[in-house]
Amino acid sequence: MSLLVVGTVAFDEIETPHGKSGRILGGAATYVGLAASHMIRDIRLSAVVGEDFPNEYMRVFKERGIDTSGISVVSGEKTFYWSGRYHDNMNIRDTLLTELNVLAGFKPVLPDAYRNSEYLMLGNLTPAIQRSVIQQMDTRPRLICMDTMNFWMDTAWDDLLDVVSMVDVLAVNEEEARELSGEYSLLLAARKILTMGPEFVIVKRGEHGAMLFSGDEKFCVPAMPLESVADPTGAGDSFAGGFMGYIARCGDTGFESMKNALIYGTVLASFSVEKFGTERLLELSGKDIEERLAEFVKMLSFSF
Amino acid sequence: MSLLVVGTVAFDEIETPHGKSGRILGGAATYVGLAASHMIRDIRLSAVVGEDFPNEYMRVFKERGIDTSGISVVSGEKTFYWSGRYHDNMNIRDTLLTELNVLAGFKPVLPDAYRNSEYLMLGNLTPAIQRSVIQQMDTRPRLICMDTMNFWMDTAWDDLLDVVSMVDVLAVNEEEARELSGEYSLLLAARKILTMGPEFVIVKRGEHGAMLFSGDEKFCVPAMPLESVADPTGAGDSFAGGFMGYIARCGDTGFESMKNALIYGTVLASFSVEKFGTERLLELSGKDIEERLAEFVKMLSFSF
Repeated sequence: MSLLVVGTVAFDEIETPHGKSGRILGGAATYVGLAASHMIRDIRLSAVVGEDFPNEYMRVFKERGIDTSGISVVSGEKTFYWSGRYHDNMNIRDTLLTELNVLAGFKPVLPDAYRNSEYLMLGNLTPAIQRSVIQQMDTRPRLICMDTMNFWMDTAWDDLLDVVSMVDVLAVNEEEARELSGEYSLLLAARKILTMGPEFVIVKRGEHGAMLFSGDEKFCVPAMPLESVADPTGAGDSFAGGFMGYIARCGDTGFESMKNALIYGTVLASFSVEKFGTERLLELSGKDIEERLAEFVKMLSFSF
Repeated sequence: MSLLVVGTVAFDEIETPHGKSGRILGGAATYVGLAASHMIRDIRLSAVVGEDFPNEYMRVFKERGIDTSGISVVSGEKTFYWSGRYHDNMNIRDTLLTELNVLAGFKPVLPDAYRNSEYLMLGNLTPAIQRSVIQQMDTRPRLICMDTMNFWMDTAWDDLLDVVSMVDVLAVNEEEARELSGEYSLLLAARKILTMGPEFVIVKRGEHGAMLFSGDEKFCVPAMPLESVADPTGAGDSFAGGFMGYIARCGDTGFESMKNALIYGTVLASFSVEKFGTERLLELSGKDIEERLAEFVKMLSFSF
């Protein structure tokens, strides 16, 4: 039940109508890893940071039992930095500044101990990097899930299709599913993506929940209605962490288990957005998760 | 199990990226009545039309077993007319023309036979008209559901609050729930509306499904993913028709029955948008509905 997470570890600086975060820990691999750490123990991060990355943040991972030996620290360089501002309704955000810094030269080399990981989550990175990670594995993971974004569809189409054909689960948002497939209907988009290689397609819909497709099967869940959203940053990655953490824990990759994983992903994402950055993911207890899971399952349940 | 439906019966003219409808039968009461006619037999319409309203359309209702004795035909006047154009993604529409015509003077007088109806659906009309209908009932219906819109919040606030306090179910879209409550979070909005009188609040979310709130209970369903949407006009009213039709048929107004009603409403709405206007609602068989219901229930079902 080992999970390898490859992706960004970053400094984020976030503004919302409710306040400013200051410079905080962010990045896709950070959210995936922290969310998954509530489900399983053996999590390994592969990422790159600059020499400005504080030990305090490394300790955050270690305290959650996450292996950081695959996070390379590049001296003389700075950590990837992103700042953004959310509009009133929290659905639209403007990127204020992106400084790739050390990420520009990121070529992950997996530590030997990572190469036998049973589950692999590829956060959004260039398709070529995602592929190189798959190729470094000693044995093919039991399940590979990848995230991607429109940018690679516009700039690295062939590489992207190649990696998509190598993975089991593709997790994209509505807009990405549409651009990748050329279909507006999410049902048709998912069917088309399923012909590109993945056995499962997840469409992440933010505050409207998530959809899972495989063969002729589909499963859709709404998001958890919340009293307030403090910061949507990392919601999709927290979802992916909850999803992969559940799969790694239960060890089954059939459609019924995937449904439950979708539910866990939605629950972890619902916590993530309640406070700035990773704060809520870090303070969360197992009891908190079980209570919200019970509430969520109740909200979805009916009987004819 | 009699259902009284009060609302508009209209001529619609709809343009989408896929085509033009020409002048067709429309109106909220039309969609509610036709959708509900797949669930129950005893449906009564209260509406007003002009002398240009064709007998052929009256026959459409009669063939579905709908009582039209409460549709007044005003000689020398024209039927309410609406035309609109949908944008590429079918989520945004522009109203091209609204001619109130006979609707401007609509003061429904219920036939005696209507005044004992067990269930009442108040389509979107001025709050004063909605109230006058409630006041004309001989006995208080077992369940009153009302639809409304932002326009009345801006122009008839006190009347609107008065009617809201008289009904059991308020069905609104996201934007309306937010304006009525002053809360952005739909969870907080629903809680606030529940303090205004209704025992149940439904938030209609279009392609993202629907939410039902009552007391501390909530139930959320996604919409049915479809291969294509020909015309979203009347989706919310078809939803209301399926919802009220189910409640009238099962005769129970508890939360568990309301959940099933929400599912039936979603299923009827999913058919309605597949063709222009009321075409799909009219050709639909009981078998079609049962098959889609089974598919929808399967899509929502899981077990831990």
